Amino acid sequence: MNSNEIAALAERIDSIKTGFYQKDFLQTWQHSVEELKAVLMAAEALEEMYRANISCRVFNGGLAVSNFRDQSTRTRFSFASAAALLGLQLQELDEGKSQIAHGETVRETANMISFLAEAIGIRDDIFLGEGDKYMAEVSAAVDEGFREGVLPQRPAVINLQSDHDHPTQSMADLLHLQKTFGGEGGLENLKGKKIAMTWAYSPSYGKPLSVPQGIITLMTRFGMNVTLAHPQGYDLIPETLQIAERHAKESGGSFTKTYSMEEAFKDADIVYPKSWAPFNVMEQRTKLLRAGENDKLKALEKEALANNAKFKSWECTDAMMKTTKGGKALYMHCLPADITGVSCKEGEVAAVVFERYRLATYREASHKPFVIAAMILLTRFEKAGATLKQLMDRKSPRRGA
Amino acid sequence: MNSNEIAALAERIDSIKTGFYQKDFLQTWQHSVEELKAVLMAAEALEEMYRANISCRVFNGGLAVSNFRDQSTRTRFSFASAAALLGLQLQELDEGKSQIAHGETVRETANMISFLAEAIGIRDDIFLGEGDKYMAEVSAAVDEGFREGVLPQRPAVINLQSDHDHPTQSMADLLHLQKTFGGEGGLENLKGKKIAMTWAYSPSYGKPLSVPQGIITLMTRFGMNVTLAHPQGYDLIPETLQIAERHAKESGGSFTKTYSMEEAFKDADIVYPKSWAPFNVMEQRTKLLRAGENDKLKALEKEALANNAKFKSWECTDAMMKTTKGGKALYMHCLPADITGVSCKEGEVAAVVFERYRLATYREASHKPFVIAAMILLTRFEKAGATLKQLMDRKSPRRGA
Amino acid sequence: MNSNEIAALAERIDSIKTGFYQKDFLQTWQHSVEELKAVLMAAEALEEMYRANISCRVFNGGLAVSNFRDQSTRTRFSFASAAALLGLQLQELDEGKSQIAHGETVRETANMISFLAEAIGIRDDIFLGEGDKYMAEVSAAVDEGFREGVLPQRPAVINLQSDHDHPTQSMADLLHLQKTFGGEGGLENLKGKKIAMTWAYSPSYGKPLSVPQGIITLMTRFGMNVTLAHPQGYDLIPETLQIAERHAKESGGSFTKTYSMEEAFKDADIVYPKSWAPFNVMEQRTKLLRAGENDKLKALEKEALANNAKFKSWECTDAMMKTTKGGKALYMHCLPADITGVSCKEGEVAAVVFERYRLATYREASHKPFVIAAMILLTRFEKAGATLKQLMDRKSPRRGA
Repeated sequence: MNSNEIAALAERIDSIKTGFYQKDFLQTWQHSVEELKAVLMAAEALEEMYRANISCRVFNGGLAVSNFRDQSTRTRFSFASAAALLGLQLQELDEGKSQIAHGETVRETANMISFLAEAIGIRDDIFLGEGDKYMAEVSAAVDEGFREGVLPQRPAVINLQSDHDHPTQSMADLLHLQKTFGGEGGLENLKGKKIAMTWAYSPSYGKPLSVPQGIITLMTRFGMNVTLAHPQGYDLIPETLQIAERHAKESGGSFTKTYSMEEAFKDADIVYPKSWAPFNVMEQRTKLLRAGENDKLKALEKEALANNAKFKSWECTDAMMKTTKGGKALYMHCLPADITGVSCKEGEVAAVVFERYRLATYREASHKPFVIAAMILLTRFEKAGATLKQLMDRKSPRRGA
Repeated sequence: MNSNEIAALAERIDSIKTGFYQKDFLQTWQHSVEELKAVLMAAEALEEMYRANISCRVFNGGLAVSNFRDQSTRTRFSFASAAALLGLQLQELDEGKSQIAHGETVRETANMISFLAEAIGIRDDIFLGEGDKYMAEVSAAVDEGFREGVLPQRPAVINLQSDHDHPTQSMADLLHLQKTFGGEGGLENLKGKKIAMTWAYSPSYGKPLSVPQGIITLMTRFGMNVTLAHPQGYDLIPETLQIAERHAKESGGSFTKTYSMEEAFKDADIVYPKSWAPFNVMEQRTKLLRAGENDKLKALEKEALANNAKFKSWECTDAMMKTTKGGKALYMHCLPADITGVSCKEGEVAAVVFERYRLATYREASHKPFVIAAMILLTRFEKAGATLKQLMDRKSPRRGA
Repeated sequence: MNSNEIAALAERIDSIKTGFYQKDFLQTWQHSVEELKAVLMAAEALEEMYRANISCRVFNGGLAVSNFRDQSTRTRFSFASAAALLGLQLQELDEGKSQIAHGETVRETANMISFLAEAIGIRDDIFLGEGDKYMAEVSAAVDEGFREGVLPQRPAVINLQSDHDHPTQSMADLLHLQKTFGGEGGLENLKGKKIAMTWAYSPSYGKPLSVPQGIITLMTRFGMNVTLAHPQGYDLIPETLQIAERHAKESGGSFTKTYSMEEAFKDADIVYPKSWAPFNVMEQRTKLLRAGENDKLKALEKEALANNAKFKSWECTDAMMKTTKGGKALYMHCLPADITGVSCKEGEVAAVVFERYRLATYREASHKPFVIAAMILLTRFEKAGATLKQLMDRKSPRRGA
């Protein structure tokens, strides 16, 4: 994109009526299709400006707070990158180092960390039913704090993965699809494309459900034909399936469930083979984690792994890939993938397949910092497009004296 | 405040003769009343500028170093916020990850972390008698380093809580009092107000003495009538009581000690009920911690908790609040409070009382980032007021392109 | 230096033809003498600009990523300082908090952390043979990522200590020597100077070999007479000795090995007494660490410490210092030193000697942030000198409104 094209893109953002300002980004299904398009546009504009060496600093003296209740590399660095891009200083809330163990309320902590915060990114996906609840609590707390004049500004809460959704991942995935299939037609060109979101074998246990749930609920909104495949018993949270069904109806796409990886792959334009733990195992695990029942947790893990092992054939092999549309569906993954013979003995994907799409998956991941930055920009600036336009005019270099 | 008022406030700061430049902020009693007023003014100016969307960045390429030897959320985020506000990049000194275990001297570490440091914030309150000593050592070391040309600049050491004082807390508290009671008269209006700094029951043990000590030594300087109340045996460090007495005499206020919470609350304008460990328990604990005597530490904790339990009636209940001036004294707390039925079964304050003042305590806390920023500004800029004035003229936006 | 002199220095940098741009700084011997001079010049220019209160910010919205696989204070703060100086936001890759345990490849992680990264600093010196290999892998990965358009920019990998070299230390040491002995003649004046890099006793075990290796390979390039002294059995990695020999031949200096500390100190202009573990002990330790053989590791440590204890006489005492050139050789150390009677009972250096040179060793260390910043500047800017010149012209203050 040249600078005129970027400026034009920036202008189009403000033509979309969104309700983002002073709010959060928690689950994609809470937002309209138009709002999601605004996020994609802002992400694309920021990415193009970054590549064109234009500084995207719009903050000077604020914090981006992160709270990772589970491990993370990609999302951690993406959030840090988004903060740096926009000029926010990152401050991690490490609950182990804090006084939160003293019995402090979420409501209080949320305000205490937010006096100069513009964004709060949260990953909370270990306890089923906890993550989204916690984020909603933080959101309500900063709403009250801002309304009552405690907080000089209202920080946006950004969902960096909860038990229901992983919107920074699914939106980066969507941008990847738009760039791969879109061309001039943009998202329109995704209509009618078949995407297979399928379970795949992995020698691990307890992987969150948020990625498959995020994919089926999001891609059904753009007229895609989404097929969800998994072995019997590996169900997702039922609510998310209902959402996917509704979205498919609304967009003219479809949402199909099957217990056959083969059926899902057949003639697919896109495949997304990825392991996850069954919903009911996650439920049991949550109860046992809460009760601190370590022996039963070990038994559950053993049982779950043994069950997984029955489905080692759920692997994205070269033979499977041959059954996709023209034998060359786009392979997607949120990374890290469990690659057979590379990161484990038997895994989600054959090494030869992964290697063919390896750089594509890196590109897929590369959009995440800009998607997060776009979410912060749209929630923190009433006229995000105009702000981007000002950055274009300011022409302050990102790299250079 | 409008921008003319902020500019006028900034100008007034330089009319006060302070000895802050190239020095530290360690204990409030090392500073004159005029100097403390300068801190409040600078804090207020920075807070107003922040709210008016004026960037307060005065550094471009320096570090703010923090060393937390004890847990912290509020102060950690306040220090990080102050750093971000002024344009310093935060770098935590995690002694566990460092080579300090090798037997390195404090003098050496202080210089090694300071080549580009403008401020060093230290929390050290676990070992009685250690914190202030450590901070003084760091201060002397950076003095030498700067004098000898090792350091290009002399970082200010900021006490983020020691065994004797907690100046960023007590100064934020003072600003809260000024905003609550001051009006046009400012600090003058605090004269004659009764503040009850009282012990309160908590099911925890080993809480630092620095908050009550900070309050009695600071509030006595502004003509307030300070009453310190605690059960027999829950003494503070004797030196701080002497300071409070001297201050009361000098300011025309008073300093009274009592073993009755009722007496302290009676007709009080302000109450500050908060748990702390007895001075002599802290002394024993310090010795046992140093000797690594874990069994004796456990015995001491058990004994101390049993002793605490005798004083469960020391709770800030609604009935107690009714005995204060007009039944509506200002309730204060450094947070997190031990709230009966919320964060613990029986605690420092009844839920109904805390809830009534909850947002007020959040506002109390909200001043801390700006108090810390003010301390850094005054110690690092010879003409801090003129610097603030320049920021007002520069009008660079804190948020915006 | 006045500003004209700094500007002149900046201009001289671009007169040197270097191959730094879009590359790394891994081992000094991979770079030409001219390239090393460019690093020293850039470091000096940055240091002088910093002292002259000129902002050196050349980035606005990028990350500096660090990965410390071993403890560090000095280098950690030096890297953080360099990042802050240039305007990069620091983000530590804490492999414990990441998903790297999942079996992710180095190639993948390197790309995932680099979408907005301009520099990646790595300390990896625990496993012999691992550190340099790991850095080379990261380097190849970001090369591929940049070439394939995954990364918008190619971050420079900076060696913050590997098993072979410690270039940010040795280059800071070289700058210290230039400032101490150079005068008008600069590095030319180092020709013919005798530097004694000698082992010294320490009650610790497993210290890396990278400092002595870094010193002998670097100082031999500038016509110095380098003497390496250690007890029998305390060998360095053979390859580094061959490099030192070659460098001495090329530069007209000399490289001598001896088993006598006395011989090394005799008439030395500079002494660098420092403990390290024997190469073959490090090899065994690496094998046992990999195999997780804790009992054998303890036995090895015990044996190594017992062996060390035979050489307690290898101490830099006042008597030893008297044997150096005019009795006043420059004492150097990378810090922290094991100081007899201060940080340990018996150590590398007598307290009286260390105290005499203490501030000099602090000055030696003070160059490191600027050396690292120079490495980043030269690898990230094709015309680093012109960039510095622009900063001089921009005259944006480092401290001030």
